[in-house]
Amino acid sequence: MNLKVKFLKLSAGRPVAIMHKNTAEKSGIHVDDRISIRKKSRKIIAVVDIAVGMFEKDKIAVSTEISKELGLKENDIVEVEPASRPESISIISKKLKCKRLDEKEIKDIIQDIVENALTESEIAYFVSAIYKCGMTAREVRGLTEAIVETGKKLSLNRKIIVDKHSVGGIPGRTTPIVVSICAAAGLIMPKTSSRAITTPAGTADALETICKVDFTISEIKKIIKKTGACIVWGGSLGLAPADDKIIQVERLINLDPDEQLLASIMAKKLAMGSKLLLIEIPYGKYAKVNKKEAKKLEIKFKSLAKSFNIKVKCFIVKTSEPLGNGIGPALEIKDVISVLKRETKNSLLESRSLELSAEILEMAGKCKKRQGIFMARKILESGTAFKKFKQIINAQQGKIKNIPEAKYSHDIISTKSFKIKIIDIKKINSLARILGCPTDKMAGIYLHKHLHDKVKKREKLLTLFAESKEILNSGINFYHKNIPIK
Amino acid sequence: MNLKVKFLKLSAGRPVAIMHKNTAEKSGIHVDDRISIRKKSRKIIAVVDIAVGMFEKDKIAVSTEISKELGLKENDIVEVEPASRPESISIISKKLKCKRLDEKEIKDIIQDIVENALTESEIAYFVSAIYKCGMTAREVRGLTEAIVETGKKLSLNRKIIVDKHSVGGIPGRTTPIVVSICAAAGLIMPKTSSRAITTPAGTADALETICKVDFTISEIKKIIKKTGACIVWGGSLGLAPADDKIIQVERLINLDPDEQLLASIMAKKLAMGSKLLLIEIPYGKYAKVNKKEAKKLEIKFKSLAKSFNIKVKCFIVKTSEPLGNGIGPALEIKDVISVLKRETKNSLLESRSLELSAEILEMAGKCKKRQGIFMARKILESGTAFKKFKQIINAQQGKIKNIPEAKYSHDIISTKSFKIKIIDIKKINSLARILGCPTDKMAGIYLHKHLHDKVKKREKLLTLFAESKEILNSGINFYHKNIPIK
Repeated sequence: MNLKVKFLKLSAGRPVAIMHKNTAEKSGIHVDDRISIRKKSRKIIAVVDIAVGMFEKDKIAVSTEISKELGLKENDIVEVEPASRPESISIISKKLKCKRLDEKEIKDIIQDIVENALTESEIAYFVSAIYKCGMTAREVRGLTEAIVETGKKLSLNRKIIVDKHSVGGIPGRTTPIVVSICAAAGLIMPKTSSRAITTPAGTADALETICKVDFTISEIKKIIKKTGACIVWGGSLGLAPADDKIIQVERLINLDPDEQLLASIMAKKLAMGSKLLLIEIPYGKYAKVNKKEAKKLEIKFKSLAKSFNIKVKCFIVKTSEPLGNGIGPALEIKDVISVLKRETKNSLLESRSLELSAEILEMAGKCKKRQGIFMARKILESGTAFKKFKQIINAQQGKIKNIPEAKYSHDIISTKSFKIKIIDIKKINSLARILGCPTDKMAGIYLHKHLHDKVKKREKLLTLFAESKEILNSGINFYHKNIPIK
Repeated sequence: MNLKVKFLKLSAGRPVAIMHKNTAEKSGIHVDDRISIRKKSRKIIAVVDIAVGMFEKDKIAVSTEISKELGLKENDIVEVEPASRPESISIISKKLKCKRLDEKEIKDIIQDIVENALTESEIAYFVSAIYKCGMTAREVRGLTEAIVETGKKLSLNRKIIVDKHSVGGIPGRTTPIVVSICAAAGLIMPKTSSRAITTPAGTADALETICKVDFTISEIKKIIKKTGACIVWGGSLGLAPADDKIIQVERLINLDPDEQLLASIMAKKLAMGSKLLLIEIPYGKYAKVNKKEAKKLEIKFKSLAKSFNIKVKCFIVKTSEPLGNGIGPALEIKDVISVLKRETKNSLLESRSLELSAEILEMAGKCKKRQGIFMARKILESGTAFKKFKQIINAQQGKIKNIPEAKYSHDIISTKSFKIKIIDIKKINSLARILGCPTDKMAGIYLHKHLHDKVKKREKLLTLFAESKEILNSGINFYHKNIPIK
């Protein structure tokens, strides 16, 4: 049936269409049913709400999620049909019984996720099935391919495109330093980063305090042409729309099955055209994985990358504390600038960034084996890396500036002399989030001391930053209740 | 914050509240967040949509699901707060890792489901966890208790209350016949039934063609006082609201873990105060379970019932064809009346109903062992059962009448002579649903022949009924493509 589009300026977080009761009844459509809405060749599946008297019978109100996706204007005519139960539901049932899926079946599921034909609950069943039954290497490959096929791609037509990924969980931004060093060495490095999910800051959140991170694919092409690299937010690029939805459902319950993680990372790298990929896997008591799990991940990453002709190296490294002094978007980017400007020397953030850069330089053949570290250090110490960083930030419409502090701060003073034996990263992350990260960009924590440091009585241990007194006080309370540093 | 209720006459299938953009932003509430809405002591958790310009900033539009639950009137003032992430999410995560849950943890999940604090996706994870990891006897007991505690109860203050349940999947309504016989024998039998989920008709759908099935608890009490029994729809009674929601999420993907099934059935029987329970478990190629699974279910049912002091007997019976001639709400109730009126004799529907009644009469001590079948037959043949049935139907505001046929019908004629070896119940069910069951009450199938019958060339095999020519034709097409009788 044809209906006229009505705008209500209503966002529902997912495509929702409101139909008039009489119109819906006539077509046998009930509340919560799924309908397909078509405008020329573009189609979306929406969930139906039913209204009486909000608008005329020949109209259909669509949420902003629908009008954006279909490019609708008010009073446009759309074709509306009841959507049949997607076939992929029975494929998900099959996987829940731990049966193997073939490429076609996986592709059907992913296609339906992208078209919104599957509800979040149905995606939750899919995630549970992967979590419950695992996936064969072949299935993971199929999943990766399906995610890439249903997303956008960056085509740079360059032979060597390098990339890095960190399995994450540890505060401290090596990425901007590594990208600056590698790009200064002449490598092409189109880096997409995430925003914070469970941590106080993602690389995109940190960078955003000094430049834009939200670009289209064609804008990114221009930035890379100018500078050889970029550091942008991957989320708005549509590289892996299916993956974005799956992650949204996983996040509900903090589920993160290995196979989905592998496919998710690899799909985004494939979409960016990466050929050489360094994966940092920090392990330790407060990291996402332990050493054994890190080794397992390495094997899985390598096997998957091989099937796509990507050269992968995993950098497995014990990590027991935040890499820099700052925790929080602005505080972390300050650390980055301080290392690049050579104001801070010999920090953990510097040494880790150099090690990672060295691996990439060697993988890409920019220098001989074991020479990478010297090359990376030279680029950093000569200021070439900082120059490249400024160039990238400028290309991303930003500039290096003095970043102001948050409105309120509070020093935590040591009440005794001791040597720091534990920095509980999970508690530190929680504290930073309580202080307002990542939404409040300037909020967070500054560590005056690091692991194994001696602290004297009355010495500053850390400083808390927040944008309101109340928030600062909750942070102080949390600190004293949980004591993350011992 | 306090907001004024605005009605939009909008049904969303779940509690949805629409907030003004500015108001939401001020309180840090985003689209798809959960908020609690409170009116005096009543509270509900709702999902947030965001609107611009639909109404004033001090208003909140609520879906009918919210206004009903809180008993709201337009312009009522409600207290709105961001709802924190429910604790029960981490309990669900725990179960997904196959760890055991204690009574308190299970109760927290069920409580949050009832209060709508958990989304459907989160409930899907819970269902997956049960499906993946199973549940110990103790967990099933805890789940049952939690479901009963969060629902309404029927208190009859009678010592012997009998009940029956069928694990289902086979068309044919024994329930009205069994209830009539048992109540005629003086037993108290407050029977709640379901509407069709995957079959063409539930007992409630069938009964609804001749009387009301939708009553409140206090109305049911009156019906039972008058007649000793009732046959009503359980859905609107609120006996097990948590279970209703879980089943809704299971249905998305046709998942039905044993443990959930057990808890679901037992909780509803507990809520009705049943002391003696007969469970019919049909098995066979086209039934829900095979013989081995039926035996397993029996053991689980018995152990669970024992812990609640309920006497259970399982009637495990091979079933290879529909019990009556009719498939579809009206056609099945016609069969029931025909058996009760003694117009049809010696049918499978009659013999199964007598067997089930006999078991209940014996369990309740109405007769000696092995005498139940004679007692049941006497009650049926003397017309006492029919009298009781009419009494119940009258008490449920209905009457025995001639039920009209559907508008369109089509006979399937045999093209050869053969003996019926297979009646594929699953295909028969699909065919009946295609013909419009259970929505079109008169639609369905009439079987002129049964298993092992000889069919001559040009003899009527079955008749299809539908309310429109198009639907009838799709039914005919489906029949010829799938041939459910061989």
